[in-house]
Amino acid sequence: MTMRTIYWDTANNQVKTIDQRELPGKLVWVSLRTGKEVADAIQGMVIRGAPVIGAAGAFGIVLDAFQSHANTLVELTAELAGSRRILQAARPTAVNLRWALSRMNRIFSTYEGSVEGMRILLLEEAERISEEDIQTSKRMADFGRTVIEDGDVIIHHCNTGSLATVEGGTALGAIMAAWKQGKRLKVLVDETRPLLQGARLTAWELQHAGIPFEIICDGAAGYFLQKRLATKVLFGADRVAANGDLANKIGTYMLANAAKANAIPVYAVFPISSIDPACVNGEQIEIEFRGEQEVLDLVLLGKKTSPEGAHALNPAFDITPNHLITAWITDRGIIYPPFNMDSPENPGNLEGITK
Amino acid sequence: MTMRTIYWDTANNQVKTIDQRELPGKLVWVSLRTGKEVADAIQGMVIRGAPVIGAAGAFGIVLDAFQSHANTLVELTAELAGSRRILQAARPTAVNLRWALSRMNRIFSTYEGSVEGMRILLLEEAERISEEDIQTSKRMADFGRTVIEDGDVIIHHCNTGSLATVEGGTALGAIMAAWKQGKRLKVLVDETRPLLQGARLTAWELQHAGIPFEIICDGAAGYFLQKRLATKVLFGADRVAANGDLANKIGTYMLANAAKANAIPVYAVFPISSIDPACVNGEQIEIEFRGEQEVLDLVLLGKKTSPEGAHALNPAFDITPNHLITAWITDRGIIYPPFNMDSPENPGNLEGITK
Repeated sequence: MTMRTIYWDTANNQVKTIDQRELPGKLVWVSLRTGKEVADAIQGMVIRGAPVIGAAGAFGIVLDAFQSHANTLVELTAELAGSRRILQAARPTAVNLRWALSRMNRIFSTYEGSVEGMRILLLEEAERISEEDIQTSKRMADFGRTVIEDGDVIIHHCNTGSLATVEGGTALGAIMAAWKQGKRLKVLVDETRPLLQGARLTAWELQHAGIPFEIICDGAAGYFLQKRLATKVLFGADRVAANGDLANKIGTYMLANAAKANAIPVYAVFPISSIDPACVNGEQIEIEFRGEQEVLDLVLLGKKTSPEGAHALNPAFDITPNHLITAWITDRGIIYPPFNMDSPENPGNLEGITK
Repeated sequence: MTMRTIYWDTANNQVKTIDQRELPGKLVWVSLRTGKEVADAIQGMVIRGAPVIGAAGAFGIVLDAFQSHANTLVELTAELAGSRRILQAARPTAVNLRWALSRMNRIFSTYEGSVEGMRILLLEEAERISEEDIQTSKRMADFGRTVIEDGDVIIHHCNTGSLATVEGGTALGAIMAAWKQGKRLKVLVDETRPLLQGARLTAWELQHAGIPFEIICDGAAGYFLQKRLATKVLFGADRVAANGDLANKIGTYMLANAAKANAIPVYAVFPISSIDPACVNGEQIEIEFRGEQEVLDLVLLGKKTSPEGAHALNPAFDITPNHLITAWITDRGIIYPPFNMDSPENPGNLEGITK
């Protein structure tokens, strides 16, 4: 199962997307009408997943271009520069958002023509980013499925499926492609506290795809690794440094570390656009902290879990250093650092590509 | 703050204990009247924590001795052998339960006298086990506080305080003793999925003791370790093998592994009675699996989290190998494996004891 999770609603000049906070209970489509609404949707986790928020950010610029009452191109350009700042602030860790906004910026800061012409160009660029993301997912799946073997038991962290991309997925896309090839496999789904994207979203996608899975607590992954009851670890990435260090959902580092200690291969699956050539290593990646209610507002077996007045710390990402990662699976092949972004058409050491 | 969490109610020949499932919302004392009720309370997590379930198991034997209608010692002994089996099955991983039941068995299988005399002897032995546990906590705290330095930020897993013992605690007892000495410290409380003993119980105990703390998701510990925002890791143990490998609450292994990778010291604090000389290493320790509802029956920010029909795997413990542990802090001092239980008065290599 793959499904398109975000698109431009041409009749209404709005963006339609799934409210991921409502899953798995309800499949709710929402309309976003302004860049600010897109930013709020990203901040509020209505939309999450590095690739899809790139596309969402691009559509956010388009929405503001359509909403604008600007009469001149200078006016519109100034407004869209403001939109870009608001959208970028919504998720500082993910580089795809910045990358997509840069592409949009190249248009609205250089175009010379009518306000209406600019709107059309911006919409075309956002549609192109979305279409490219779908193709990118397909290529990641083609490369990624080659590392998955018949009989694998795969520990997967967070959500990296259609819900994390425009359509298709990164790590989960590779798993689904391997399953479609007829490889027998099982997924151990890290529930992925605090927001439980594993238990809520990945479990939901796997259930719809008919792929066998079981949910585990994040802390339980070590048990399955040490007992050799898991054979592979797969996850995505929100930002990848030039040396192959990467930021991904909190908990990824401890998972990769435990896998490495037990010689279980660890694969990161992400689009080339997640590589940030400006980051030499992971220490330079900014980590977003989110509100403490995501940790504290929890009811287990019908009972509230933390005492009144308690506080929490909630880093949303951590850094997995390159030495814990077996291979970096991208839409350009299976690559190894250092990633040479001076040559963006040919990043990374492409030796060892499996085609 | 230390508080007595289990005691014999002499007026009613019952055991009184705190229902830990109700914390932190309510402090509810419950009465247990039979060995079976004690076993159910252990199985149902009304009582948890390796030391306290040793004392609880001993009281379970006493309860059945008082409830019994046996007229002869032979009859009573046979009944209590049955009680022992039921109690032992309630938590196979924790060795303290087996150890306490063995002590009770030594009495009821060898005593020659009246039924009433046996009841009194058994009650005395159970009271002795409880009193010893309180003294054991005090000694662990005295040794444990010496490894804690002024300014420490300590990551703590599960609950190891008064609620895990008869009174005092293991790792949390050491932290509280260091705090009482005037050492400034902060605790990062692993919430400890699935049953959230950290967020529910450790947070509650720290709050009452006035010790600064913040709750974190289990998967977030790696972030604080890799950023050097934590300086020590402390936890307890449910069973310790002769080589120093130990079973503790699920998630301990991944935590210790991440601490080791960042050269942050890891201290396990446990009574000598948690050492199982019959286990050469951790691979020989049986791991209890618990019901999947502990993983699945969760409501986050008001919403049910996993899809209908999804299943979970729920190992309750994992094994932390000895090479990840900096020191083993016990009531007999800070010791290092191999633990020589041929000489139970002097287990372990006692070099390096801090007194």
